[in-house]
Amino acid sequence: MVGGGRGAFIGAVHRMAAALDGQIELVCGAFSSSAEKSKLSGADLFLPPERVYGTYGEMIEKEKALPEGERMDFVSIVTPNHLHFGPAKMALENGFHVVCDKPLCFDMKEAKTLQKLVGKTGLLFALTHNYTGYPMVKQARAMVKNGDLGEVRKVVVEYPQGWLSTKLEGTGQKQAAWRTDPKRSGIAGAMGDIGTHAENLAEYITGLQITELCADISTMVDGRQLDDDGNVLLHFDNGARGILHASQICAGEENDLNIRIYGTRGGLQWFQMAPNSLYVKWLDKPQQILRTGGSGLYPEAEAHARIPAGHPEGYLEAFANIYRNFAYCLQARMAGREVEEVYKDFPTVEDGLRGMHFVERVIKSGKGKAKWVKV
Amino acid sequence: MVGGGRGAFIGAVHRMAAALDGQIELVCGAFSSSAEKSKLSGADLFLPPERVYGTYGEMIEKEKALPEGERMDFVSIVTPNHLHFGPAKMALENGFHVVCDKPLCFDMKEAKTLQKLVGKTGLLFALTHNYTGYPMVKQARAMVKNGDLGEVRKVVVEYPQGWLSTKLEGTGQKQAAWRTDPKRSGIAGAMGDIGTHAENLAEYITGLQITELCADISTMVDGRQLDDDGNVLLHFDNGARGILHASQICAGEENDLNIRIYGTRGGLQWFQMAPNSLYVKWLDKPQQILRTGGSGLYPEAEAHARIPAGHPEGYLEAFANIYRNFAYCLQARMAGREVEEVYKDFPTVEDGLRGMHFVERVIKSGKGKAKWVKV
Amino acid sequence: MVGGGRGAFIGAVHRMAAALDGQIELVCGAFSSSAEKSKLSGADLFLPPERVYGTYGEMIEKEKALPEGERMDFVSIVTPNHLHFGPAKMALENGFHVVCDKPLCFDMKEAKTLQKLVGKTGLLFALTHNYTGYPMVKQARAMVKNGDLGEVRKVVVEYPQGWLSTKLEGTGQKQAAWRTDPKRSGIAGAMGDIGTHAENLAEYITGLQITELCADISTMVDGRQLDDDGNVLLHFDNGARGILHASQICAGEENDLNIRIYGTRGGLQWFQMAPNSLYVKWLDKPQQILRTGGSGLYPEAEAHARIPAGHPEGYLEAFANIYRNFAYCLQARMAGREVEEVYKDFPTVEDGLRGMHFVERVIKSGKGKAKWVKV
Amino acid sequence: MVGGGRGAFIGAVHRMAAALDGQIELVCGAFSSSAEKSKLSGADLFLPPERVYGTYGEMIEKEKALPEGERMDFVSIVTPNHLHFGPAKMALENGFHVVCDKPLCFDMKEAKTLQKLVGKTGLLFALTHNYTGYPMVKQARAMVKNGDLGEVRKVVVEYPQGWLSTKLEGTGQKQAAWRTDPKRSGIAGAMGDIGTHAENLAEYITGLQITELCADISTMVDGRQLDDDGNVLLHFDNGARGILHASQICAGEENDLNIRIYGTRGGLQWFQMAPNSLYVKWLDKPQQILRTGGSGLYPEAEAHARIPAGHPEGYLEAFANIYRNFAYCLQARMAGREVEEVYKDFPTVEDGLRGMHFVERVIKSGKGKAKWVKV
Repeated sequence: MVGGGRGAFIGAVHRMAAALDGQIELVCGAFSSSAEKSKLSGADLFLPPERVYGTYGEMIEKEKALPEGERMDFVSIVTPNHLHFGPAKMALENGFHVVCDKPLCFDMKEAKTLQKLVGKTGLLFALTHNYTGYPMVKQARAMVKNGDLGEVRKVVVEYPQGWLSTKLEGTGQKQAAWRTDPKRSGIAGAMGDIGTHAENLAEYITGLQITELCADISTMVDGRQLDDDGNVLLHFDNGARGILHASQICAGEENDLNIRIYGTRGGLQWFQMAPNSLYVKWLDKPQQILRTGGSGLYPEAEAHARIPAGHPEGYLEAFANIYRNFAYCLQARMAGREVEEVYKDFPTVEDGLRGMHFVERVIKSGKGKAKWVKV
Repeated sequence: MVGGGRGAFIGAVHRMAAALDGQIELVCGAFSSSAEKSKLSGADLFLPPERVYGTYGEMIEKEKALPEGERMDFVSIVTPNHLHFGPAKMALENGFHVVCDKPLCFDMKEAKTLQKLVGKTGLLFALTHNYTGYPMVKQARAMVKNGDLGEVRKVVVEYPQGWLSTKLEGTGQKQAAWRTDPKRSGIAGAMGDIGTHAENLAEYITGLQITELCADISTMVDGRQLDDDGNVLLHFDNGARGILHASQICAGEENDLNIRIYGTRGGLQWFQMAPNSLYVKWLDKPQQILRTGGSGLYPEAEAHARIPAGHPEGYLEAFANIYRNFAYCLQARMAGREVEEVYKDFPTVEDGLRGMHFVERVIKSGKGKAKWVKV
Repeated sequence: MVGGGRGAFIGAVHRMAAALDGQIELVCGAFSSSAEKSKLSGADLFLPPERVYGTYGEMIEKEKALPEGERMDFVSIVTPNHLHFGPAKMALENGFHVVCDKPLCFDMKEAKTLQKLVGKTGLLFALTHNYTGYPMVKQARAMVKNGDLGEVRKVVVEYPQGWLSTKLEGTGQKQAAWRTDPKRSGIAGAMGDIGTHAENLAEYITGLQITELCADISTMVDGRQLDDDGNVLLHFDNGARGILHASQICAGEENDLNIRIYGTRGGLQWFQMAPNSLYVKWLDKPQQILRTGGSGLYPEAEAHARIPAGHPEGYLEAFANIYRNFAYCLQARMAGREVEEVYKDFPTVEDGLRGMHFVERVIKSGKGKAKWVKV
Repeated sequence: MVGGGRGAFIGAVHRMAAALDGQIELVCGAFSSSAEKSKLSGADLFLPPERVYGTYGEMIEKEKALPEGERMDFVSIVTPNHLHFGPAKMALENGFHVVCDKPLCFDMKEAKTLQKLVGKTGLLFALTHNYTGYPMVKQARAMVKNGDLGEVRKVVVEYPQGWLSTKLEGTGQKQAAWRTDPKRSGIAGAMGDIGTHAENLAEYITGLQITELCADISTMVDGRQLDDDGNVLLHFDNGARGILHASQICAGEENDLNIRIYGTRGGLQWFQMAPNSLYVKWLDKPQQILRTGGSGLYPEAEAHARIPAGHPEGYLEAFANIYRNFAYCLQARMAGREVEEVYKDFPTVEDGLRGMHFVERVIKSGKGKAKWVKV
């Protein structure tokens, strides 16, 4: 693992997600840019001191030097955005598979480099767009794919949060600080941090691609350097229309990613904060609620639930589905066998590139006077 | 009453709303463009035959000729859009107050004429933007006005319906037929029929005005002549940003008008389909649910509930609040006294003009290439 | 109307319910035990002074003396419990149909007298167990009747309120005062006031009868004379088991009457406070939500909705359904024709008698040591 | 681990729960009564073959023989009810701490033996009444303890499931087979399997004890040997009244454990299926929704959430809280230090004994004619 030392947020999430299913063991790490903090963090995690490294470079080199079967199998990168590219590139160049937090990296140039490198090495690369790991998101995707809704006409995807309603970055809060800093976060704030999740979710479920967009991007908190609110009109490649809005200044909102998709025969609605229900509204028959582990699901949804219906699965379980599918694919590859189709499903470097591109276009549209910007 | 004969929808709603509180009595009507149908409809309503008229012109003339105290006090106009102007103008010119269904009329020219006439005559003119009649909408408005949410930063208002997902107007369905016909409905379909409700609700609650907009207007059903889906970005006069979307092709949706308003201190959420709850999300304390008839309400909300909390009030009660407030104001005027402040609250010809203007700008933006259109 | 003067609660509800559909006109009343208050109340209601009476006796006598076609058609009784019997008996004896608030009367003796009198006179007698007027309650009943749920096995019916959590009757609050006074309310407090609604709802929907019960009846507020909380185990005549609990000391609850019914094939759930949804949970397929005015309803439900799905109907509309059905039956009888089957549906004196009997058994069980008491 | 081999349900849950926080490592197991199946299961779990045992006896003996620091620290028992006692007793007698699935064991005699043994050895013994691990359950308990609700007056706790609505045990379904078999499950079916969870939850949150009960116990499915439905009236030691019902024949229900608690100042409501919200209804101010990770929580609730508000935590996280608290207490004991107060919170052998006693009394009441049975 690269990053995720004491005080970090997403590193602990990755560790819990990776551990949940007993398929992955944390064996080494470079947990902090401070070698001392890395050591302490490693000790917290019961790692042997010799496998807690001061830098990712040291880690990759020394692990590579270990005998096969003892060295790490892949690298998890859980650092802020501007520190994804370095370890990802080096890991790939040294033959290690990669799991990387989103967004893929800092800018389009880095993104394209990584894309090429993955293509060249043939290594596995998972990007943790974790929200696509929920069983009911899989169900939604399968329903659209199987034509249950007819032709998709309209998509509304929202990601409101409220935690940056005040100038939290001015208080020394670490998570706020790097996310609002263009040197560490990139060209976008909210749109990069959570807008990409919304974009990824919409394209994942519908199987459509955004072709044009029109964005209204704002910074509501005085003195903030990056956007904290964005409203975007969307055109999809089949003619469907859409709206995407993401915000970190919706005071009082927690993490309310949600999506609605309307086709000619009916509509779907899903809320990340109540993720085990999928509301299906039909044109001409009563509304249904599909449930994780319940009746009437496609195999794609069934394969990603662990416990019977009514035992709620949450964020960590969805996140763990990304790791588990990655682990299953990696195990199969190492064993020279095929993995079941339903498990060949995790976001890749291509999703990462698409997300980076989306963010770039959104920011461009937000600054421009043209109504529509091509994606 | 003008319109609202057998087979009509909104006429019956107006009658139930007007009757609910025992303040208004239906005394006469011209219920249909067919004199015979008007007679039959009047008989259904237990009206004496001599006060069931063949045309609105006849009604206004004959009622005016009746002695004071016997003649009707005001006219309710419940016809399709293109038939609002005639009876409204004639009623005003003959000294009758008016309640008129929305939108105000067919085009801006008519709208301005009516506005002037109301100004000149000083008569009461209520427009039934009925959704502002809900107690929890009154509460929301009072909370914003009193600064409970701080400065408003973001508004999301939605009005999804699904009933025009197919070409219903091709089946002879009367409600669908006139709403999708530019000769009877005007320049807009969904945006005029329900988009204006959304616009009115947002401006009513926030007390802000939309200054610019950017609209993406579509017709999803083949062969339909007017829009059935619209997505609009909004700028408000205090710098707040917003999104308004209205649709009649969201298959499976009933009548899900809803609004969210976020200020610097917290946010509000209200759903027309569960109208007795107002969700209040605070920046730094637990979420609350305010309830019609419950604790912690402003007088504006309390004055518009009839029964104790937990006895659900619905669409007709909200609609009746428009009529009741109109009746209270009219009674006070006739008695030469002041009405209580909380009851001086119903949509007027000014709201109607603003709605007509909004629709005109939305359609213009939808057809244009400029990103922003002034309102 | 008997009762319902200034300051009363349920009288105004009856008037709004009766007025809503334009089928019933308030023509006279004896609104209070104070003749002066009755006059003032009548004036509030725009009644001619000569038809506002000082007592119900005067009203019945004088109305009877009016020519047919001018006199009232029926009497609505909206007084406290101990004042139902007198006007009901006199009305029936003088040939007037009756609508009476629940519970039927003060004790079983009165109840049986009224039952006989209705039988003897053949007059219409409606008891306003208003909650059975909701369209989704009609739907639930039709589903059970049609076997959609299979054989009913379990019923859970609840009626929690919180308004009597403190000794409100000690503050002069009129509604609390008579409801907690055994001289005006009868042998039961909460169980009579709202427990009977729960019992009526359960038997109405399931079509089953309670055969035995075991009750735990409490008075939680010091110094209160009647029960304010009751928990009851139920046996039904088909072998189904049930639970009924009603309370007025569930602090914070509004008026949360709700019911769940489980059969061999699935279950139903309905909440009075969100009355337009009926949740249907199937043994082996996804859960559905049936909606007032929506798809997949039985004619019994369709006939009792007024406006399209998504326009919420509430407590007054359900109450009005009792009045409207009563009016339709009365009109048909007066016109010598049959009324449609779906409208022959309002609670009668038999339901009232059953409710009185239920309350008597509950109180007996609550005081006794035997586990089961026959009903 | 004892039990939890291929095809088992709760064993996998225990493993995920134990792994989540990186505090516990699975080191050995006797996963099945079939030695071969145990081996295969151990291999699935990446255990070295020499630590996969054929019987729990072998496991305890051989592990005890390993050097300190290499041997297992405690035993997890995840077998059906009748197989808890043997391994639990042997583990305690050989100095191993124990985590045991609920109910504690097969009958009261076994229960008392275990209680004494725990007392005598001073070893840690956790019983996985996992539902008390939810953060919002901790919050509810803290609120009652701190008097926020005033004096508790009424408790309604429900545990409806529907999965045994048909004779599933006749189809060879393993989970159904042992739960409905008196030789493996004990004297009770639904009341032992889930009724005890309801009892434990009610007593845990309120801090009250049930003193008397009156039970109506049924078997609804023909040919079933144990109860599948039970409705129970409760008296608590402070005078509060309650209702507990648990069922496995509520067709269509998943796992809807829920509880309501009403005090003199307000009420609480919590649903296991939406576990991150705690509804707080106040006597005289607006309802609140407290949220996992949100504002206004007690330290007991804060200490048991892992991720920010709006990232839903579920069943496994709650289950993991039992394991994590157990691990923290065990680590502290091994390190000779005190653990923080908020983590000294997991169900013990005393809760297990109380649950066994409750079940015994419920079944006795169900069979008897006396109204009240002492607990």
